[in-house]
Amino acid sequence: MNKQIKIGIVGYGNLGRGVVSAIEQSSDMVVEGIFTRRAPESISVNNPNLKVWPISQAEAYKDEIDVMILCGGSATDLPEQGPQFAQMFNTVDSFDTHAKIPEYFDSVNKAAKDNGKTSIISVGWDPGLFSINRLMAEAILPVGETYTFWGDGVSQGHSDAIRRIEGVKGAVQYTVPIKEAVEKVRSGMNPELSTAEKHLRVCYVVTEEGYDQADIEKKIKTMPNYFADYETEVNFISEEELKEKHSALPHGGFVIRGGQSGDRNKQIIEFSLNLDSNPEFTSSVLVAYARAAYRLNQEGQAGAKSVFEVPPVYLSPKSAEELRKHLL
Amino acid sequence: MNKQIKIGIVGYGNLGRGVVSAIEQSSDMVVEGIFTRRAPESISVNNPNLKVWPISQAEAYKDEIDVMILCGGSATDLPEQGPQFAQMFNTVDSFDTHAKIPEYFDSVNKAAKDNGKTSIISVGWDPGLFSINRLMAEAILPVGETYTFWGDGVSQGHSDAIRRIEGVKGAVQYTVPIKEAVEKVRSGMNPELSTAEKHLRVCYVVTEEGYDQADIEKKIKTMPNYFADYETEVNFISEEELKEKHSALPHGGFVIRGGQSGDRNKQIIEFSLNLDSNPEFTSSVLVAYARAAYRLNQEGQAGAKSVFEVPPVYLSPKSAEELRKHLL
Repeated sequence: MNKQIKIGIVGYGNLGRGVVSAIEQSSDMVVEGIFTRRAPESISVNNPNLKVWPISQAEAYKDEIDVMILCGGSATDLPEQGPQFAQMFNTVDSFDTHAKIPEYFDSVNKAAKDNGKTSIISVGWDPGLFSINRLMAEAILPVGETYTFWGDGVSQGHSDAIRRIEGVKGAVQYTVPIKEAVEKVRSGMNPELSTAEKHLRVCYVVTEEGYDQADIEKKIKTMPNYFADYETEVNFISEEELKEKHSALPHGGFVIRGGQSGDRNKQIIEFSLNLDSNPEFTSSVLVAYARAAYRLNQEGQAGAKSVFEVPPVYLSPKSAEELRKHLL
Repeated sequence: MNKQIKIGIVGYGNLGRGVVSAIEQSSDMVVEGIFTRRAPESISVNNPNLKVWPISQAEAYKDEIDVMILCGGSATDLPEQGPQFAQMFNTVDSFDTHAKIPEYFDSVNKAAKDNGKTSIISVGWDPGLFSINRLMAEAILPVGETYTFWGDGVSQGHSDAIRRIEGVKGAVQYTVPIKEAVEKVRSGMNPELSTAEKHLRVCYVVTEEGYDQADIEKKIKTMPNYFADYETEVNFISEEELKEKHSALPHGGFVIRGGQSGDRNKQIIEFSLNLDSNPEFTSSVLVAYARAAYRLNQEGQAGAKSVFEVPPVYLSPKSAEELRKHLL
């Protein structure tokens, strides 16, 4: 057996915990340690053997860690950590601020290239697996339309927006693809659909005593950007019900391309995900790409990459020969 | 604009015709000519500007053709043509005799490497896109099961087997995924299913006068390997109906992985195809991978590759920057 790939984890929230679980399923990898901005002794880890170090000491582990998985957020953590860690480590991250991807890529690319490291950015399912499917479907069927639907799944941003309304004690918002829209797309009709025509917003809300629910419902449904343009359903429930039925973080969605080949033959390509745990799945994807980052670096392919530039073979612990024999 | 990639086509059956159509949708490519074993003047091409040459003259076009797409069959054509053409051209083919892939890969690899050419083998949807999805889903969710379903679609081999029965004038066999099995798999139950428990065989048969249909039905249903182990439905229809309703070559199917992450969270990945024309879709995939073969060769990556070793970015006519900006 080859040596195990030694993984470092930066940040120990939902994503970091998911990375630990995913690596437990991967015999070719091992968690070397977790780096945190919090006091290490305050972190309760899901495995007592895990070591937790202050993030400021990361540099000391430069020669011990093969790939650092960056589990911070895209708003403030990654723009700083991405290029910083790429100077010292091979890295993988889930940067998902779409508009800033080119800029982020450039800054990570420079840091990685200058230091002979390999960094794979924007890894997960969207951006990530969905992106790969959009690219491949469009390349294979150049005449056609691609549609991305998200859900059923919890949108953290929309749930937070409801919670900011006065009188709201708790709230969870599900993004739900509209069935009729999905069916039209699957049939190859290639309809014109705005994001609002593709998705429904379903809210479960707990109110404080003494507030008017009709008033809160109106405030939700008319909230600009978040709900005003969408068909929105608001359900008021008890705090117990919210905890019991809406504490999980399911998600998923589909990428569908309706294409046409030859003499008007319809060709439909669909990729879909149905996830009990959104963060754990993202972590599973990060771990597979950490394997790829390590191997690309071993081959001398330094610099930043997106999932578009990574051959599938690098994701699997199996050899190319074995894969051709059994999975091709 | 970069120069157009010049494509040669070896063999002009359903697949070759589909390649011509697919290239008409791709402005970065052009068909240089078709090579055939038949008399060139006997070939009726779907575009009067297409040139048709005898296959024996292919070598003369060594320096003019960037990629040769081999559209012959896996039984006898490709085992010979694959290594032969890989000595002179970059090639792409749809070799699909599963058990012989390692041997075929080795023979093409040697020919291509010795001559600085790049050959991508076993391209299409299965083997091909389905294989990529099997690999990636397994790498991302190592704990789980992968299922491949085929259909609804015409199986040429099974249709031929029925036609060989005495008294059968015409026949088409559809492979149909069994709904209950698909639903179980989609739900993440990960049931144990044999190929026969996953697929139904639906046959449309035209008989000659004077033959007993009950007898023919029995012969079909008890035919070893092809039907005996399957639930098989036989429908006798008229010759007109067979022509009218069963002349197309639709196909499709799904690859589903039911995985588990963290503390028993179910994670389902599905890739599916719904194709009006099986050969045209395979051709569309071949053309996208021809683009990849050309680019890999430009970068000096000689030898044989499977779809596993090709980064998605090479399939698209767009640049990596453009793709990161718009599709990631």
